[in-house]
Amino acid sequence: MIQTLIAKIQKTNAPVVVGLDPMLGYIPDQIKEKAFHEMGETLEGAAEAVWQYNKAIVDAIYDLVPAVKPQIAMYEQFGIPGLQAFKKTVDYCREKGLVVIGDVKRGDIGSTSAAYATAHLGQVQVGSSLLTPFGEDFATVNPYLGTDGIKPFLDVCKAENKGIFILVKTSNPSSGEFQDRLIDGKPLYELVGKKVDEWASECMAGNYSLVGAVVGATYPEMGKVLRQVMPKSFILVPGYGAQGGKAADLVHYFNEDGLGAIVNSSRGIIAAWKQEKYASYGAEAFADASRAAVIDMVTDINQALQNR
Amino acid sequence: MIQTLIAKIQKTNAPVVVGLDPMLGYIPDQIKEKAFHEMGETLEGAAEAVWQYNKAIVDAIYDLVPAVKPQIAMYEQFGIPGLQAFKKTVDYCREKGLVVIGDVKRGDIGSTSAAYATAHLGQVQVGSSLLTPFGEDFATVNPYLGTDGIKPFLDVCKAENKGIFILVKTSNPSSGEFQDRLIDGKPLYELVGKKVDEWASECMAGNYSLVGAVVGATYPEMGKVLRQVMPKSFILVPGYGAQGGKAADLVHYFNEDGLGAIVNSSRGIIAAWKQEKYASYGAEAFADASRAAVIDMVTDINQALQNR
Repeated sequence: MIQTLIAKIQKTNAPVVVGLDPMLGYIPDQIKEKAFHEMGETLEGAAEAVWQYNKAIVDAIYDLVPAVKPQIAMYEQFGIPGLQAFKKTVDYCREKGLVVIGDVKRGDIGSTSAAYATAHLGQVQVGSSLLTPFGEDFATVNPYLGTDGIKPFLDVCKAENKGIFILVKTSNPSSGEFQDRLIDGKPLYELVGKKVDEWASECMAGNYSLVGAVVGATYPEMGKVLRQVMPKSFILVPGYGAQGGKAADLVHYFNEDGLGAIVNSSRGIIAAWKQEKYASYGAEAFADASRAAVIDMVTDINQALQNR
Repeated sequence: MIQTLIAKIQKTNAPVVVGLDPMLGYIPDQIKEKAFHEMGETLEGAAEAVWQYNKAIVDAIYDLVPAVKPQIAMYEQFGIPGLQAFKKTVDYCREKGLVVIGDVKRGDIGSTSAAYATAHLGQVQVGSSLLTPFGEDFATVNPYLGTDGIKPFLDVCKAENKGIFILVKTSNPSSGEFQDRLIDGKPLYELVGKKVDEWASECMAGNYSLVGAVVGATYPEMGKVLRQVMPKSFILVPGYGAQGGKAADLVHYFNEDGLGAIVNSSRGIIAAWKQEKYASYGAEAFADASRAAVIDMVTDINQALQNR
């Protein structure tokens, strides 16, 4: 699957992933009103609004980018109907040829981690049937529980040619509380990065591994070090744009081959119509605003890569 | 909610939680055959089998214990129908008067963590409606992202009188890879424990906090230290029984008041009928085997507490 992602990055010339993290506040009134009129101010109504909003954005951007990253929390908050909208979004994006990174940040141990890996990347056996629960291509995974939590994901990645991105250094202000603390003179995130590199070695597919890492755009000096620590891993980079990460800071997340990183933007793209820069599109043409924001982001990142 | 949990522990005299972590392999054939006959070898069929199995066990044990802990991964692996069975289980257990600890191990940052907190412990606003997505009483939370990830859960706990258990030292063999590493001479789990104590101080409800911790039964010496580090937090203790934790090892997880810990057993209870000790019940009376296993577990733990 990492080879598919690489091929799509090369085809679109866009090392960019669009975060499908719908908040009701981002969704234009006309979509919400229609959904609530049809289904009430219910979980079903909210889920329908989310789905219609996602679909319009995906239709507007699917030819520009290799991948999308739906954040499952934003769907889970609308209960079962919300998760149905998540599943519909995953299926629709895959139909449109997009690689789907499920931002699920799951992590547990043993058979429980295996169940999460099955849920998001694998197939579950029921009697003699093999069934696909959610069917993303990649998932994000939390490393706090150690190898016991990661190994079941590696097994599914190898068996199903899927991939994971393991949290190493997250983009948020307080990520340093634990992740930056020194252990034998090195920060915890570097220790986690070294384990990611070990796990990555077990799951190679060409020049890259099925095992990648999450490193926030907001800590570029750390990103530079982690690029060296995990040479075989793709880095999924959150924090560009709305969280403050700039394209010039991100060039060191890439390898010399121009690959090795994929930069996420969520509200910067999906809520572009609410920004001053794209306000002229108006609420009706919100998806066109998203398309313009993707084009600007891709240009910004590619210019920075050319100037490095 | 911690006061409700304490009252139920005192009423049942059982500092015990039953983990509802159904694997298809634990479910007796007669239940699976009926569900597959009605709904096919589908996700719906698997979810129906899980639900019927859970219901029978809950009916057999609800008067003996204060709480249950459904592990959401085991439901998520059956996709949307699996999560519908999770929600039905949560609702049914609450109807039966049980406190429900959603073992979800969620954790993200900012608005994303807020969405998870809403999903599991809160209410979501849709138009002018306030709706309950999943409605557990407690949730387990992963601390790797720091305060940004925890704070939204604290806000929901305070607003809704709910609670969380934060992973501190997990029960699995490789938990030490990161959690035991020394930072300024103290292991990471102790540093996390100190932060839990700070967060707990913000959310007091009587003598205990709405913020608890997860500390595995398999590391009793560490449990003893962590009991001192987090005096206001209830400790949720996985790893008893099947994972090797013994009652005598667990007494130091409790405070002098006889409270402060609640010990989980999952397959030791729900799959009791498959153990030699309870084999005489047979597959038909699997729920009675679970009841017998609960009684034995409660006796075992209370004897250890009396002998300390």
